Amino acid sequence: MEINIVSDEELKKKPDFTNLKFGSIFTDYMFSVRWDAENGWGIPKIDPVSSFQIHPAAKCLHYGLQVMESLKAYKGIDKNIRLFRPELNMERLLQGAKRLVLPAFDSKELIECIKRLVKLEQEWVPDLKHAALLIRPVYVGTDPTLGVAVANSALLYVLLSPVGSFHPPGFKSASVYADPKYSRSWPGGSGDLKLGGNYGHTIYIQRAAEKRGHHQVLWLHGKKNEITGVDCNNIFFVVRNESGGIELITPPLNGITFPGVTRQSIVELCQNWKDVQIVEKTITIDDVKKLLDEKKLREMFGTSSACITCPISSIFFDGSKYDVSTVKQDKPIYDRITNALCDIYYGRADNPWGVKID
Amino acid sequence: MEINIVSDEELKKKPDFTNLKFGSIFTDYMFSVRWDAENGWGIPKIDPVSSFQIHPAAKCLHYGLQVMESLKAYKGIDKNIRLFRPELNMERLLQGAKRLVLPAFDSKELIECIKRLVKLEQEWVPDLKHAALLIRPVYVGTDPTLGVAVANSALLYVLLSPVGSFHPPGFKSASVYADPKYSRSWPGGSGDLKLGGNYGHTIYIQRAAEKRGHHQVLWLHGKKNEITGVDCNNIFFVVRNESGGIELITPPLNGITFPGVTRQSIVELCQNWKDVQIVEKTITIDDVKKLLDEKKLREMFGTSSACITCPISSIFFDGSKYDVSTVKQDKPIYDRITNALCDIYYGRADNPWGVKID
Repeated sequence: MEINIVSDEELKKKPDFTNLKFGSIFTDYMFSVRWDAENGWGIPKIDPVSSFQIHPAAKCLHYGLQVMESLKAYKGIDKNIRLFRPELNMERLLQGAKRLVLPAFDSKELIECIKRLVKLEQEWVPDLKHAALLIRPVYVGTDPTLGVAVANSALLYVLLSPVGSFHPPGFKSASVYADPKYSRSWPGGSGDLKLGGNYGHTIYIQRAAEKRGHHQVLWLHGKKNEITGVDCNNIFFVVRNESGGIELITPPLNGITFPGVTRQSIVELCQNWKDVQIVEKTITIDDVKKLLDEKKLREMFGTSSACITCPISSIFFDGSKYDVSTVKQDKPIYDRITNALCDIYYGRADNPWGVKID
Repeated sequence: MEINIVSDEELKKKPDFTNLKFGSIFTDYMFSVRWDAENGWGIPKIDPVSSFQIHPAAKCLHYGLQVMESLKAYKGIDKNIRLFRPELNMERLLQGAKRLVLPAFDSKELIECIKRLVKLEQEWVPDLKHAALLIRPVYVGTDPTLGVAVANSALLYVLLSPVGSFHPPGFKSASVYADPKYSRSWPGGSGDLKLGGNYGHTIYIQRAAEKRGHHQVLWLHGKKNEITGVDCNNIFFVVRNESGGIELITPPLNGITFPGVTRQSIVELCQNWKDVQIVEKTITIDDVKKLLDEKKLREMFGTSSACITCPISSIFFDGSKYDVSTVKQDKPIYDRITNALCDIYYGRADNPWGVKID
């Protein structure tokens, strides 16, 4: 690896970590490595973050040849810095690259490169509750040729950005807006991958929801209005079942659900919880209405590595508002999940999911 | 408009226009204009084609904030250079920008800018049958912030690339490969727009088709295997109907069909043809099988501005091969359509669809 260090005077001043705007500040250094069909992978590099040259015909600007990841580095109470299950992000990045026919990379090696970068930038990892250093790998096809075809050159890079809590100050719970005219994912599509093309087309309805005073979009699919997720990726429902037990329901990984690392970790965590039964099954808007009518729906929340959990207190659908008592529960499940995950993120619990950077 | 002309010595040598590889050669100049939320649109510029600086966090590289167009400039038999219905491409580009919440632009003004660029590059317009100068507008969100959100800055640019026939030398007809596991578009998605994100995820199955010896992918949708298009965008079927007449069938614009300019022009052209009835309706794989069994399917062809028409002679689906007699017809409709459109492209027919650049 080639590491190009600049003098201390050229380094940025660290921002106020208690007041960070999501994704707007980057650390001093980034990782990058180029590939081309003739020479294979080039030398991996750590350089100061800077703009780079791109040809206006680069395939990643025309044909969505781009896939990315989001994970975080956390400063633990023991002052160790940990990643959370980075191998899952690398596996998903590889799946996305495969779909775009970008070459595979050695994911263990990429994790080592990321650890090296985070170690260099360790002062940028906020030592604060709910704050972290966002790690953003991006992998794009770069060759300057028109035509939807396999890329002959590519660029893989990693940016770091210190982030605070995903939720704005004073945020208590989300109002979500569902419009069956817009759909995030579809069978045979790429909704189970983190391709750039899954996001751009969602901004229109996201903004429409915001204009109507809602926080996020609740994604529906098909004529039955199957719920596939929410802005912040995955969705969970806490339901009291027929026999009085508690079920935690989330849509199954059927190709249209995003395979979130947080989702997977919650599913696995809850398998060890005796008082909660995790159920992966399809749930429609009508199912939710019925559960509300029967007073069985206790909580509804989104999950992602950005927000961990995001409690939802109302759904707008087809001109009606449906209230969910998520934040009115005495000991809500979403809170218990957030705490269990944060215990691992911040080293309060000893768990192999938390991977120290050295 | 700011035009930065370089000296004649700095201009590229023109390639052999009889032997062009699609989309790999660009002319000397490109058009560009930047926008940002604070200052609005900047000064439109014509500059030499060159790589530009992009921030690694630019939204167009992470979230598919990109939309493009494809149209062509043709050198007519009267030596005039014509565009073909450029207002339709501009309208579609505006629709895509709207979906990405990129700001609207004045489409008439953009057409004037494109005409100005093409006029400057008129020596790059091949004076050859089936060759043309491809015009590629690209519109991307550029601000360097993480988070799926409205872009605060954007770049709109136009590249030109001389292209020969879309089909490789010796090409007679296409074999198409249909796999219901992969779908190009979906209700509530963006398959009716020319967003970059519609293309990247298709490369995997496109390559799988090529590896199996087929030329293109026949796109299916849903459990009924509705045919939505083919690699080269739209699809048409020539069918002998019950009363012995000829129907030209193409899928309707229902949100999952790409609204091709060539498609629209064929539909409009055929409305004036007395011996062919144009029918916009859904057609499934089973419908095609039935038409073949009943010996009613005469032709099947793809259409796009890149290929004009692309005759299809076989379909591979679910382990079986189905032959279509497209290229065995005496006076095939696809040929008649190609000629009718080329008459307009190359100025052999006087038609307002052909728009002279001056």
